[in-house]
Amino acid sequence: MSLSRLKRILIGTPFPTSAAPHERLDKLRALAVFASDPISSNAYATEAIMTVLIVLGSSALALTMPLALGIVALVILVVFSYTQTILHYPEGGGAYIVSQDNLGKYPGLLAGAALLVDYALTVSVSVAAGIRALASAMPELYEYRVPLALATILVLTLVNLRGVRESGTIFAFPTYAFVGGVLLVLGLGLVRYFGLLGAPPLPPHPVRVPAAVSLSGVALAWLLLRAYGAGCTALTGIEAISDGVAAFKEPSARNAAITMLVMGMMAMTLFAGISFLATHMNIVPEETESVLSQMTRAVTAEMPAGRYMYGWVQLFTMLILVLAANTGYQDFPRLSYFLARDGFLPRWMMNRGDRLVYSSGITVLAVIASLIILAFRGDEIAMLPLYAIGVMVSFTLSQSAMVKLFSRVKRIPAGGVEQTQYTTLRSESGVVWKQVLSLIGATVTCVVLLVLVSTKFREGAWIVVVAIALLILMFRAIRRHYDFVRSSLSTRELTGEDLRDVADVAIVPIADVHRGSLRALKYASRISRDVRAVAVCTSESQKEKIRERWSRFPELTSGIRLVLIDYDYRDIIAPLFQYIDYVNNVEFARQLVTVVVPEFVPGSLAENLLHNQTAHILRLRLRPQPDIVVIDVPYHLSERSFEDAERRGQRLARRPPSGVGH
Amino acid sequence: MSLSRLKRILIGTPFPTSAAPHERLDKLRALAVFASDPISSNAYATEAIMTVLIVLGSSALALTMPLALGIVALVILVVFSYTQTILHYPEGGGAYIVSQDNLGKYPGLLAGAALLVDYALTVSVSVAAGIRALASAMPELYEYRVPLALATILVLTLVNLRGVRESGTIFAFPTYAFVGGVLLVLGLGLVRYFGLLGAPPLPPHPVRVPAAVSLSGVALAWLLLRAYGAGCTALTGIEAISDGVAAFKEPSARNAAITMLVMGMMAMTLFAGISFLATHMNIVPEETESVLSQMTRAVTAEMPAGRYMYGWVQLFTMLILVLAANTGYQDFPRLSYFLARDGFLPRWMMNRGDRLVYSSGITVLAVIASLIILAFRGDEIAMLPLYAIGVMVSFTLSQSAMVKLFSRVKRIPAGGVEQTQYTTLRSESGVVWKQVLSLIGATVTCVVLLVLVSTKFREGAWIVVVAIALLILMFRAIRRHYDFVRSSLSTRELTGEDLRDVADVAIVPIADVHRGSLRALKYASRISRDVRAVAVCTSESQKEKIRERWSRFPELTSGIRLVLIDYDYRDIIAPLFQYIDYVNNVEFARQLVTVVVPEFVPGSLAENLLHNQTAHILRLRLRPQPDIVVIDVPYHLSERSFEDAERRGQRLARRPPSGVGH
Repeated sequence: MSLSRLKRILIGTPFPTSAAPHERLDKLRALAVFASDPISSNAYATEAIMTVLIVLGSSALALTMPLALGIVALVILVVFSYTQTILHYPEGGGAYIVSQDNLGKYPGLLAGAALLVDYALTVSVSVAAGIRALASAMPELYEYRVPLALATILVLTLVNLRGVRESGTIFAFPTYAFVGGVLLVLGLGLVRYFGLLGAPPLPPHPVRVPAAVSLSGVALAWLLLRAYGAGCTALTGIEAISDGVAAFKEPSARNAAITMLVMGMMAMTLFAGISFLATHMNIVPEETESVLSQMTRAVTAEMPAGRYMYGWVQLFTMLILVLAANTGYQDFPRLSYFLARDGFLPRWMMNRGDRLVYSSGITVLAVIASLIILAFRGDEIAMLPLYAIGVMVSFTLSQSAMVKLFSRVKRIPAGGVEQTQYTTLRSESGVVWKQVLSLIGATVTCVVLLVLVSTKFREGAWIVVVAIALLILMFRAIRRHYDFVRSSLSTRELTGEDLRDVADVAIVPIADVHRGSLRALKYASRISRDVRAVAVCTSESQKEKIRERWSRFPELTSGIRLVLIDYDYRDIIAPLFQYIDYVNNVEFARQLVTVVVPEFVPGSLAENLLHNQTAHILRLRLRPQPDIVVIDVPYHLSERSFEDAERRGQRLARRPPSGVGH
Repeated sequence: MSLSRLKRILIGTPFPTSAAPHERLDKLRALAVFASDPISSNAYATEAIMTVLIVLGSSALALTMPLALGIVALVILVVFSYTQTILHYPEGGGAYIVSQDNLGKYPGLLAGAALLVDYALTVSVSVAAGIRALASAMPELYEYRVPLALATILVLTLVNLRGVRESGTIFAFPTYAFVGGVLLVLGLGLVRYFGLLGAPPLPPHPVRVPAAVSLSGVALAWLLLRAYGAGCTALTGIEAISDGVAAFKEPSARNAAITMLVMGMMAMTLFAGISFLATHMNIVPEETESVLSQMTRAVTAEMPAGRYMYGWVQLFTMLILVLAANTGYQDFPRLSYFLARDGFLPRWMMNRGDRLVYSSGITVLAVIASLIILAFRGDEIAMLPLYAIGVMVSFTLSQSAMVKLFSRVKRIPAGGVEQTQYTTLRSESGVVWKQVLSLIGATVTCVVLLVLVSTKFREGAWIVVVAIALLILMFRAIRRHYDFVRSSLSTRELTGEDLRDVADVAIVPIADVHRGSLRALKYASRISRDVRAVAVCTSESQKEKIRERWSRFPELTSGIRLVLIDYDYRDIIAPLFQYIDYVNNVEFARQLVTVVVPEFVPGSLAENLLHNQTAHILRLRLRPQPDIVVIDVPYHLSERSFEDAERRGQRLARRPPSGVGH
């Protein structure tokens, strides 16, 4: 009982099903909820590009800016293409649903698998980066980053198991505080860099040095592609709005589309700004301090209240990263609910817990994210090659699905309506242009996906490819199993005669004649006219003892057959099992045979250790047999004292349960 | 099934109970079996003394010899005293039995607990010392000593689970090879030391240096006592013969007594010899090479075939230590069998496994010994302070018991006979002298015990004291539990009316109407006229679906009450349990109520993960209720295809089991 009390304290009291929330978000709060993931990637995206380029020496870091602009262009394309998805799937159109609806089962499963992987990585990468932001400000924490990251995941898990009701408000503050803080640093940095307004110049930074090795031709192109791919982590989280359209205030689709545009602009402004300033300030990536931290430290140095400004940015970097991790806790359970509802994941992933959240999905996510943290020792830069692949798969599929969708829309006559599995299509104008836009989006993201997979394959992308393939195989196997179960249990062609007959026999394995076994025999006599008490005897003296005690209870044992099996080994389950098997398959073939097991229930777990678990082992051995019904007749050790208490009338009266209708 | 095949390969095919061995040992083989433990302690006993003395500088090591002689004197006393025990307990008289028989329950339990601890330490200490002997010859193995020690324990465990039939012969060779090898080294060493027979002198050894600190008075006496206590590990294993008298050829008691004397002489010759030579050769104990190895290396240096001689001694040191560990595998399970038979340990420790050995005792011992190895990182010198305490407790108790026994013998008239619980006493001559001898033995070992505990208390002896106390508390609690069980199940005052009545009601919890639940309902209808199908409904649509399907099987469901419980939470076990509790305690108070659980059995463990474990959880929740009989009606997923196969007559005919008598 103390375990369930602990659960009450950590998770809170259960909510009734009818209390499901219907609160909807206005644009300002929705932006904060959904933007934390894409905006937070500014904490590491620029650095990811620079970490690749540094191979060519610090002078090559100047290439960061053009690559960043290429990524900004990609984001703009994706954002515009996704607004179409939102407008066509106002009930929510994640890549799994949109691909399922337009491209079919396997593209849908591919999108689902890719996103599950990516959502798990969102949690690991964001938490690890958040701890790194903390350790940049307080270097003595660096060596504790793995336990700190695991503790953060634990807290996030508990918070999400409780259910986040006021999430909008909670999210709003750190998101805007981070955006404001970084914008201020960028502004100050630019002012100081260009020497405007009489501001003091930036402190001198090391001059750029070319590397000993220099690349050219294909090798250089390959490196640049790798750097571009590394920066694509900035695109993660953009798709989240399309899944959550239903959470917006009416007109929800329009509000969601606008929010998406604003989010893209905001994220890209920060990204371009950070990339510009970092390269022009000659910042070099380091293992223990992030680029954003170095930049903030330099810009705020020698400024009034500079230390507070630095602290502000680091604090809200950490908080927005934790919030970004939290979006994984929203997305993963929702997607696994969809997959479980369609029979591709275990059905218990649909179950909502005491607080109406998808507890199983949250728990599974927490375990996976913790394992990733442990495998990569909390180093988010090492995880980045795995990240962004899943999201790029989902972009490609979702936009290909839109191309297909627009083909269907084209065929709808003016004013006509067509119903798909997940949405309603109407005729509309400008379909050709929209389709072209989706096609360009699909093509570009597909190319980027190929670049990502090929450039990062050996660094870890292979893990994601293998994981996605295994997940799809698992989805298929699970679905097959459920289909098989449904057909097995189906009552469609069932008639009463199809059900197995019940044989009029009850086998009672006994070890000795005592109160427990006599109770079981009494029960067996009530349900069958052919009761057989079976005892395995390993010695003559044991046989004698049983016969003698048996004869002492003629009124109980009359009419019951006593079967004594001589056995010269110690494993008494085997001959019992053999006897039951014989009765089941020869005497009463194709009928249900009943085995009545006298079970002796000790008061505590420790007491259990003092008894042979014969009843339990027998039950396990009988379980695979299809035609055996096992009856447990318990005998509680405390029963006699209990009966005495009862006679003294100490038991409490009980009221009937409420809510029972017949 | 592959698990049971692996067991067959590792352990061998089962032996029938009637095949219990009756082989008895002659003196030569018995000596080898029982002597390996006390003789093997020569591998570390001298070193244990020197390790204490080295605190006073290497010149203090000269004190080793007088201390060793003091230990030899103690051994002689114990051996002579124990021969009396052997002669009076020809059926075997371990300290547990002798103390139980003469001093009462608690002294018996104290002896039993002390010996259990000591036998476990025998395994750990001997295995660790054996690995050290190996590492002295091959220093590159030193860092792997913990895994090597654990692997040795695993092998010993498997060998003992198979059962050692030819143990006598196996044991004889390494024991005599070790004794012969060490005697040769001692002989050679003495010849070279005294420059006899024109042998080359021993290589020069470092001159002794006094330590910076010097002790005097109480501190010196304390150190000498500690060194003496450390050397007392040489006494372990001496008591084993008294427990195993029954294994000797007739006249077994006389043969056992003679064997004990020879064993004591042999072990003490080696001990005195090693101590003499080690001190006169100025050997200093080192962490990575044992004293015996250093001595052998020096003595055999520059000799023809010296390297082979060194290899021989190290090899057989290791082997005799492994054999000594093996005696723990004989002693621990035998003693735990006695304790379990008397109800002080879980009864399953009496069970003999497939090969007629006490498998549970062997397994428990292996686990404890491995944990000790891990806790001490395989350093046997660190374990020694814990060792020898248990054996000294058992010496003291067993000899005190003999003092008491001789008092009883005195009162027997000439030619008279008195029967005790474990043996037969006759009048005999010289009782007074024998009693005095036992009294001196008991007093001396008691003093040594106090010295051991007080000098080694902080180094680890406290662990043994605590462990022994906890074991005795555990023995008592277990015995009480068994006494309680016996009285609970007793049929002494039982009449038929004392057994609970069976209520004519069967509750069938169902989640849906399908083949599985219909089968359970059919079964329930057969055993009761008041069947109630209970479903917890979390939504209106679910309720409708159940009502609709229910009405489709009128011939099956007529006469069955359908109870639908509305419930606004997801934890459906709670309302089910509440309903059953109400029926059990209000409607049919003080009667057995039957719950029929339709259980759905997936084909594999992996498939199990895809289903809610509602039936299983319900069974666990109902288990603590005293008056509820649970019936599992299984429905196997593979059943329909199985039935199809059956119709095609593919099942094999089965023969009736043999050995069944009615």
